[in-house]
Amino acid sequence: MRQVIITLLSDFGLKDSYVAEMKGTILCVLPKAKIIDISHDIDKFDIRMGAFVLASAIPYFPQNTVHVAVVDPGVGTERRPIILKTKNCYLVGPDNGVLMLAAINQGLKHVYVIENPEFMLQRVSKTFHGRDVFAPAAAHLARGISIAEFGREIRDYVVPDFAQPHLEGSVACGEILHIDNFGNIISNIPSALLEKVGIKEKIHVKIGAKAKSIKLHAAYDYAPLGETIAIFGSHDFLEISINQGAASKQFNGKRGDSIRVWPTY
Amino acid sequence: MRQVIITLLSDFGLKDSYVAEMKGTILCVLPKAKIIDISHDIDKFDIRMGAFVLASAIPYFPQNTVHVAVVDPGVGTERRPIILKTKNCYLVGPDNGVLMLAAINQGLKHVYVIENPEFMLQRVSKTFHGRDVFAPAAAHLARGISIAEFGREIRDYVVPDFAQPHLEGSVACGEILHIDNFGNIISNIPSALLEKVGIKEKIHVKIGAKAKSIKLHAAYDYAPLGETIAIFGSHDFLEISINQGAASKQFNGKRGDSIRVWPTY
Amino acid sequence: MRQVIITLLSDFGLKDSYVAEMKGTILCVLPKAKIIDISHDIDKFDIRMGAFVLASAIPYFPQNTVHVAVVDPGVGTERRPIILKTKNCYLVGPDNGVLMLAAINQGLKHVYVIENPEFMLQRVSKTFHGRDVFAPAAAHLARGISIAEFGREIRDYVVPDFAQPHLEGSVACGEILHIDNFGNIISNIPSALLEKVGIKEKIHVKIGAKAKSIKLHAAYDYAPLGETIAIFGSHDFLEISINQGAASKQFNGKRGDSIRVWPTY
Repeated sequence: MRQVIITLLSDFGLKDSYVAEMKGTILCVLPKAKIIDISHDIDKFDIRMGAFVLASAIPYFPQNTVHVAVVDPGVGTERRPIILKTKNCYLVGPDNGVLMLAAINQGLKHVYVIENPEFMLQRVSKTFHGRDVFAPAAAHLARGISIAEFGREIRDYVVPDFAQPHLEGSVACGEILHIDNFGNIISNIPSALLEKVGIKEKIHVKIGAKAKSIKLHAAYDYAPLGETIAIFGSHDFLEISINQGAASKQFNGKRGDSIRVWPTY
Repeated sequence: MRQVIITLLSDFGLKDSYVAEMKGTILCVLPKAKIIDISHDIDKFDIRMGAFVLASAIPYFPQNTVHVAVVDPGVGTERRPIILKTKNCYLVGPDNGVLMLAAINQGLKHVYVIENPEFMLQRVSKTFHGRDVFAPAAAHLARGISIAEFGREIRDYVVPDFAQPHLEGSVACGEILHIDNFGNIISNIPSALLEKVGIKEKIHVKIGAKAKSIKLHAAYDYAPLGETIAIFGSHDFLEISINQGAASKQFNGKRGDSIRVWPTY
Repeated sequence: MRQVIITLLSDFGLKDSYVAEMKGTILCVLPKAKIIDISHDIDKFDIRMGAFVLASAIPYFPQNTVHVAVVDPGVGTERRPIILKTKNCYLVGPDNGVLMLAAINQGLKHVYVIENPEFMLQRVSKTFHGRDVFAPAAAHLARGISIAEFGREIRDYVVPDFAQPHLEGSVACGEILHIDNFGNIISNIPSALLEKVGIKEKIHVKIGAKAKSIKLHAAYDYAPLGETIAIFGSHDFLEISINQGAASKQFNGKRGDSIRVWPTY
């Protein structure tokens, strides 16, 4: 049985009525839907941040939850609205990469375009597909409509760079996904990738031109005050932090900067 | 059957416990209520903004939803707590105009005063009718209590200026309801009013002393960068915007300023 | 029957995915849980403010609601995760005092440590017990697991100063719990304590070195503009305010400052 849980993520903020309009639209289709907000304070149009926050939250939701993510600078243009089926969940949103980090982590299986007007609002605006296309699609999915009824399957969907961490020899290569409120640097490098090159107690981290050999810790608490350390955060991505300091300042790192990591022997 | 969906809008913010107190109160009366937030970040005491955000959200909710709006500078004074029955929904809040924009759009039928202490908290504070009067009234409505049991019907309810766009000859006259984060100017003029004077591709817009002839577009995307345009937003009110600019600066417009619009031949 | 209502309070904010991760975790254990946010904008690590907001909200929730509060500067250290059973509700969170103001108001009966790994996430992080320990504990409580199954009962739990207002002769002694957005000073002195020394129309209030004789009012509206007054807020704690002014400035008071109150004859 499908879950009736639908999560929402967007860059709409909570001041205006946009998020509520999406919720109302969902409830018109599926009154028993249980709607959970992931975040609506994604920085405006910041696809990378949206992808990171989405990928962080999804592992904790029940099997078959429908997740909607709307960070959508291209709304009204040719970019396609899509539904993704993964091993664990469904993802609904624009084909601009915002769903891809979660999709790959969750085991991507199929991508479909949302084309069938039967599953959209009657009047689709050019500016608000969150409400007119994605919300109703999510509700119809959650009520049991098969993914293939929404449109044709595609294979040329967008996979952004930040969803493609990789190895170059024994160096794990990725980039900065997110800098949190504490100045912690969160990369797109999952523990599985670093395991392939052999995780040690000490790793070498290079961000931009700045390199540093730092310890891999289990938690912030174990690091001496002011020491720079690496940990795997609860989202399972490599995180560089300074106990009670801002790693982002030390490395002068910002979102999108490349990170290279290798074990130190 | 009545919906058990209750929406909440207020200027309380989400930092303090006020909104949660309203939700707890609703759940004590009707444990199965499905409570949806519209916005709690309405500018403090800004009735016009509250009315606009409420009217924007409501069209997307299921028939018979109960909507509560608490922007209430007069709490504790003589202003009356009211329930409105419209063609589509119920509205609960203070009689200060905050409900009226939505009410008129939704087809206002009856207005009742909330007087029956049976449907209030036992101890009604002077400062927080959102929790003590409006939340329990909404919950009792949603559980099936007839509107006439709450108190007497009235006809001298408050209708604020911003809920009264009108024609003067062939000129649609209204005012600025809201200026959004992008600097877009949102008026209180619905498409129906402009249709009466014959919408053209070009319209004349006058805000304060400043007048301009601008194109009526279908979406932001179609306007050249920097061009001032008019569109009907998803709330169906006339909106003046500059593609990637701030119309509010160009027209030097602020909330409450008058707008006059007529077709250009 | 137990309620399936679970409330959440934290200092996590709503920008990141933390709160959503807690909700997903709860829904994995108890898909029918009804999750209500109290506040996630508690000032970072401010246990006193968290305790105050929690205690303010709880009286309005149904009997047997499970309330989770995570303001947890000591996460990952030796501080214990606990469950409290009160006459009216369950409280789940760290043993650092954040639950205690609510606990005492609600009639504290038992305190248990959360030790049984069966009711935690399989992998418990050092940095996020909100998701890994408290959320699943709350969900298991709400689905009917007996409190004694979580761990052993303790009596040496933390009771912070702010949960211990008291009398010294005929003087009610407490401290400043919270200063709200209007500059109102909210104390930890409940009306019951002041009743013991005989509430009068006029009371004497001393904050730090500054003392003042002020009127006890029923609501803000009744005070002349600019007059300093005392009222019992909707949370039933004594509040010092100036009608359209900031009492916190007049008394130069900040959170944690001591307040002494006695009737003026």
